[in-house]
Parts: sequence; C-alpha cells; structure tokens
Amino acid sequence: MPRLSARLKDLHGSPVRAMLEASLRPEVISFAGGLPAPETLEDIELPPPPRALLQYGPTEGEPALRARIAEELAAIGLDCPAERVMVLSGSQQGIDLVAKLCVDAGTPVGVESPAYLAALQVFRFFGAELRPMAPGGWGPGPAPALAYVTPTFQNPTGRCWSLEAREALARACAAQDAVLFEDDPYRELVYDPSERRPAASFMRGGSRVYQGSFSKVLAPGLRLGFLAASEDLYTPLYRLKQAADLHTSRVGQWAALHYLNDPGRPERLRRLVQHYRVRRDRFAEALERRLRGLAQWDVPPGGLFFWVRLGAGVDADALLAQAAERQVLFTPGRHFLADPAGAPPAIRLNFSNAGEAEAERGLGILGELLAAATPAAHAA
Amino acid sequence: MPRLSARLKDLHGSPVRAMLEASLRPEVISFAGGLPAPETLEDIELPPPPRALLQYGPTEGEPALRARIAEELAAIGLDCPAERVMVLSGSQQGIDLVAKLCVDAGTPVGVESPAYLAALQVFRFFGAELRPMAPGGWGPGPAPALAYVTPTFQNPTGRCWSLEAREALARACAAQDAVLFEDDPYRELVYDPSERRPAASFMRGGSRVYQGSFSKVLAPGLRLGFLAASEDLYTPLYRLKQAADLHTSRVGQWAALHYLNDPGRPERLRRLVQHYRVRRDRFAEALERRLRGLAQWDVPPGGLFFWVRLGAGVDADALLAQAAERQVLFTPGRHFLADPAGAPPAIRLNFSNAGEAEAERGLGILGELLAAATPAAHAA
Repeated sequence: MPRLSARLKDLHGSPVRAMLEASLRPEVISFAGGLPAPETLEDIELPPPPRALLQYGPTEGEPALRARIAEELAAIGLDCPAERVMVLSGSQQGIDLVAKLCVDAGTPVGVESPAYLAALQVFRFFGAELRPMAPGGWGPGPAPALAYVTPTFQNPTGRCWSLEAREALARACAAQDAVLFEDDPYRELVYDPSERRPAASFMRGGSRVYQGSFSKVLAPGLRLGFLAASEDLYTPLYRLKQAADLHTSRVGQWAALHYLNDPGRPERLRRLVQHYRVRRDRFAEALERRLRGLAQWDVPPGGLFFWVRLGAGVDADALLAQAAERQVLFTPGRHFLADPAGAPPAIRLNFSNAGEAEAERGLGILGELLAAATPAAHAA
Repeated sequence: MPRLSARLKDLHGSPVRAMLEASLRPEVISFAGGLPAPETLEDIELPPPPRALLQYGPTEGEPALRARIAEELAAIGLDCPAERVMVLSGSQQGIDLVAKLCVDAGTPVGVESPAYLAALQVFRFFGAELRPMAPGGWGPGPAPALAYVTPTFQNPTGRCWSLEAREALARACAAQDAVLFEDDPYRELVYDPSERRPAASFMRGGSRVYQGSFSKVLAPGLRLGFLAASEDLYTPLYRLKQAADLHTSRVGQWAALHYLNDPGRPERLRRLVQHYRVRRDRFAEALERRLRGLAQWDVPPGGLFFWVRLGAGVDADALLAQAAERQVLFTPGRHFLADPAGAPPAIRLNFSNAGEAEAERGLGILGELLAAATPAAHAA
C-alpha cells in the first residue's frame, strides 16, 4: 500500500457534489446543491477574449478586473486597494488558500454551525478543531486563530446577522488577533430588506480576508471568485495562489470584467433577483401545503436555501435514501454541522434550480415520506 | 499578530513568477519563465461554448474531454480508462493535489535535482524531505513515499531519460510502494528523436499519477491540464479536487476539446514544433557566439530550456541583479535544486519567448557580464 498523507483520514466525499452530479440528470428533482436556475444563464454573452489573454498572466488576476472589483467593494463599505484584491478560481479556492494560510493540526477555527459544508470539510482536512460560534463572536474563552463566517444569507440557514453582531465580530477578531474570514457569495440575491454590510468593513486594524463569487450572479461554470485581504495576509495568500494554479483562467476573467462593465448589469441583476424572489415565495407556499405540521422553517430573506428542521427522531439520511429512489434529492443537515452528534434533524432545500411544478411535486414526495417517517405524525 | 500555519516558514515567493510578471513588460528580454512564443498563439480560435456550460459541472471535468484525453494517452502507451482521467486547472494544480495526497511533515519525496522549482516549493510547503534521485530511481536505501519525475524534456535540464531508466523507476515504485508521479508537459515539443514513452506506462500494479498540460501546445492562459491516476489514488484525488475548486472552468475545457478534435491539429503542432526547433538552433548558435568559454551547456532535444553551467565561483544571483539592470532576465539554477548548498552555479535560459534578435542581444549582455564575473576569464 502506498503511504498517503495522514490528513486523508479527514477527507470524505462531499455529498453535495456527488448529488450535484446526479442532479444534472433531467429526470431528477434536485433540492440539493445550489445551482442557479438554468433560465438565468440564457442571456449571458461570453465575449471572445483578446488573443493576448491566451498567454500566461499575473497570479493575482487581470489588473483591470481587480480594479473594478475594488470599486465594487468600496461601494459596499469595504475599503481595499486593488493591489490587495486577488482573483480566485472560484471562492472554493479561497477556502483552500485560507486553510493553508491558517490551519495546522489542532488549530482552533471558529465556525457557525450549521455552516457551508465544503468549508468545514477543508478546515477539517488541514486538521482544524472546529469551534461552533454564535453570530457576533465566540463568547468568553480563548479566541480561535481563524473565524469563518457568512453573515449575509448564510448557506444553509439563509440567516442575516444584525449590524451589532457584525461589528462585534470585527472588534473581537481585531482585539484578539483572530483572522476574520468572511464568505459573501449570496449578498446580491436579496429578496427582503436586510443588513448586508460586510463584517470585514467594520474592522480597524487586524487581519481579514473577505471573499465573493461570480457563481451566483454570472455563471458558475466559469469558476470565478475573488478575495480582498489585509496587508499582512496578502503576500502569503499570493504565494499560495501561485503554488495552487499559477493564476485563474484569463478567459473567464475577461467575461467577468465584461459583466461588471456592462451597462445592462443593474437591470439584469434586478430581473434575476425578482425571478428568485418569486421562486422563493412559491417554494414557501408549496412548503406550507406539503410539509406543514411535519417540519419547521423560516422564509430566508436572501440566498438560495431553506433550512428545514424535522421532527425529533426523523433520520434525514434514511429520508434521503427513500427520496432518491423517487428521484428527489436534498442535503441532510448534519453535513453542515461542526459537531453533528446529537443535533436535531434538519435538511437543506435549494429553491433556485427546480422549476415551480417540479418543486411542488418534489415537496409532495418529501411530505409523504416525512409523514411516514415522523413519529409524531404516526401518533397523530 | 495572527497565528498562521507553521507551514508558512517554507513558503517563499517564486522567483520565476515574480520575474514572469516583470517579463510581460515589452522592453525586457526574458529568458526566465517558460512562456510560449506569442506568435504561436495567433492562430488559435476559441469557440464560444454552449450555454449549458455556464452552469456548475462535474468535478472531474467534461466527460467528452476526459474520453478524448484517455484516447490520446492510449496512443502513447498509457492505458487509463476515461473514468480515471481528471481535468485540472493547469498542471500546477496536479502538484498541489498530489502533495496533499502524499506529503506530511517529514515525508520523504524523491525528486530529480535540478527539478521544476514550483513542484519543489509545493512539496516543501507540505513538509517533504526532498531526496535527490538519479534517472531510474533512488538507488539502495529506503524508498521515498512519492517519486516526482519529468523524464521527458525535463524542466530545467531538457534531459530525456533512457527507456531502461523509465522501466527501472516504474519497477522500483511498484516493488516498494512508492507513488510514481510523472509530470509530462513538454512531450510534444520534440526537436530530435528522443525516448518519450511515459515511465508510468511501464508500471504493472502500484500507484501512479501521470499528468499533462495544455499550456505548451494550446494556451497557458486557459489554465488547463489533466491527470490519469491508478485506481487506488483516483477517489482521494477526486475529493481533493472538489475541495480545491469544485471543478475547472468549463469554457476552457470546451476550447481544449475543440483543439483535440480539430482536424488541423497535427499540422498546427508540426508547425509549432518546427518553429521552436529553429528557435532552439538559433539560440544554440547565439550561445556559441556569446558564451563560449564562459559556460557549458547541452543542446536540449525538446522542451523550452537550456541549462547553462557557469564557472566555479560565479554568483548567479549577482549576475541576475546586473542583468536585470540591463533588462535581461533569467532564472538562477539554485531554485531548481533539492539541496542548493554548495552546488556548482548554473542558470536556466528559456528560448521560446524571446525573438531571434532579442535573444542575440540578451545573450550578448549575459556574455559581457559573465566575462567580468568569471574568475578564469579575469585570469586569462
């Protein structure tokens, strides 16, 4: 047997990705994954890039794109010069780079719980001790080395932090030398008025990485994201990016620059958000019709997911196995938890990808299965 | 101060990347980096991708592209089903994934010395103990956990291993449970008849990763490579790829598939190789005119580099500082060494990027500086 890294013991397959691949089959109704609605991709034009972009390019990304991103960040209150903006091969890459930057075996990492499962996976792979945190910080006790948060339309809960919680976390990180790592891929998918100012924008001094994505508003197939880092972290992140893939595809970067400069962008974004707002509302109505009394949920003010809490004793994995037999997929909640042992059962439902009729049908199937699986429903 | 990973002590900036960025300035004559000649990118057409490719895609890459790569591999003697071919965001990513797979602090990693500097950098970052190897294997003594080799037109030496050395390494890896990691980005840039059969093709049983690149024959700006792995390694590599960037840009993958299916490809490749063969020959002639008596080199049978050995006592870093003042760049040899201490001075010169007149002028400047810097030349 070859001698492989000891880290592999913490490397498990991502259930979401495996399901995402299954969910590309047309007969499947998928509430798993976080795929954009296919119809939102129909009006995207990919401009052919200038031939010079076929050559190797700068590690940090195209200067014009970095400058435009810095302008966008300034407009949301995040002051970061273009020199400290880095283009990423998707924001998943930012998680890999920050984990390499901060996490050794035993490093305490503060995370929301639930939190984005592929971030937990990467932190665990590098040996992190995950420490669940409430919005606002880690409370009394020692600070983590790194605090990973998604304060705006969190995946999976859809939750938005208050202004006070954002300020409190920024203050705590700066005061106790914890690196603040804010992941903000959903911020533009806003359906109800919500606090969206980046927690990182409240930081005075201290070490921070803020990252965003082009996967939710442009096209995930391009694999494009970006980060903005404090001065102390930028140079090591730059070196880690070099070592990871030299630089991000310049063709995709050209498309993103085109998108940011497109005068039709605000209108396109407005239509996209309205499309998803309607879809969220229809989904909430279907949930009421199909799962009332069997589960609990909040209607998310933004993002792409409903976090659905099930009755005590329901086995979400068994439910998934039954649902998958009927071509319906979702993600069991335990994958999003820093410490899944003993947590009450929950599932994450994506509402952006399935059409209205499909969602109704899929939720109908879930409702039937849940009614059979819920002890209280049996008793009733 | 934030608490960062202990691994960062082994994270140094890549001198090549820093120079590569400087070398994009038009006034600079760069023998650093490994950039394709810009004129070879002029006839590349990037087909607009089908809109469906804007959506998230499979982690391992587009099925049609993986199948085409498997066919190409079969044609060079490497038997690997499409199911174990994975598309990479450049072959640099393959090095990152294999290091994550195999390397912990203290893991012995066999490498040629000199070898590709950004591979050494990644292995060191993950804590490898680098063990220099000759072609063919590690000789007597314990086997490394991982053997990283570029048997065909190696970067930086241009060297090609004999058939016997390729077979011997494959046998040694299989017999002693070392993972064979063969990096083969230059194989199509062949100027003189050379042994090119992949070492991995001789492996019976055992654990292997073979990787190739689209950067040398198509376009580096797309950041596209691929790997083919043995069954035991494929699943963990797939999970590591998921965690690194979910998947590679589908737009670039579409371009690569178009390239592989283009009936004009053999003719385009023939022209590309002939272009570089002439450039190599002119470069060799200019080296004779400008550096004879000051340095030694072999004419490489393929690839993109001359490895130039300098007189004892010449300081390659000081030479680079002087050359850079005169707008000439190259890469000092020590960056390619597993153990640079006490090694005889050398430099790596790329011949693909600079035009003929520029190369002559740049080598003239190097010759002047070397004549002043070489103790023997002073004495003469």
